[in-house]
Amino acid sequence: MSHPAQDLDEIVHQRNRLAILAILREARKVEFTYLQKELDLTGGNLSRHLQVLEDAGLVQIEKGYQGRRPKTWVQITKAGSHALASELRTLEKIVAGLQGAGSAPA
Amino acid sequence: MSHPAQDLDEIVHQRNRLAILAILREARKVEFTYLQKELDLTGGNLSRHLQVLEDAGLVQIEKGYQGRRPKTWVQITKAGSHALASELRTLEKIVAGLQGAGSAPA
Repeated sequence: MSHPAQDLDEIVHQRNRLAILAILREARKVEFTYLQKELDLTGGNLSRHLQVLEDAGLVQIEKGYQGRRPKTWVQITKAGSHALASELRTLEKIVAGLQGAGSAPA
Repeated sequence: MSHPAQDLDEIVHQRNRLAILAILREARKVEFTYLQKELDLTGGNLSRHLQVLEDAGLVQIEKGYQGRRPKTWVQITKAGSHALASELRTLEKIVAGLQGAGSAPA
């Protein structure tokens, strides 16, 4: 039997992408610069993570203007919410397994 | 304020290395081939992950013989147990945050 960590999807599990999805699930739609500040990432680094998520259909990226300023908005897709929920279930299994490990009888 | 996912340590958080540490915490000392089977990894791939963990002082690798067969054993260090516990606490925070998100009042 394989370990539950094997069910983790690298696309969602990666630290920054997990944070992006978690933030988007709470906020629905956020601005690129908000994510950048929240995650303390360079623009290039954040762009690369968003590209991975967009290619997998987990987020949707929208470019536009607010007044004369170019803005980029990001929102989570239905597939993104499902992927995050699945990651959450797997993390719960791992956490439960680890908590059990400490209290095994001698 | 930064997201709790930012506290995740890439060395421990990576899917396969998280599984390795979780298995070692339960089993204390395991054979290389056991980990390989459990995680469905090639020898080279598992070796690279173990090297990352050993370089960080999180596991200890021991080479020896069982009869005439060369064997490699892996065990978790005190630092490895601490790192895993810290990952667990951060995962709990993330999981708690995600669970709260779904039930926010309209």
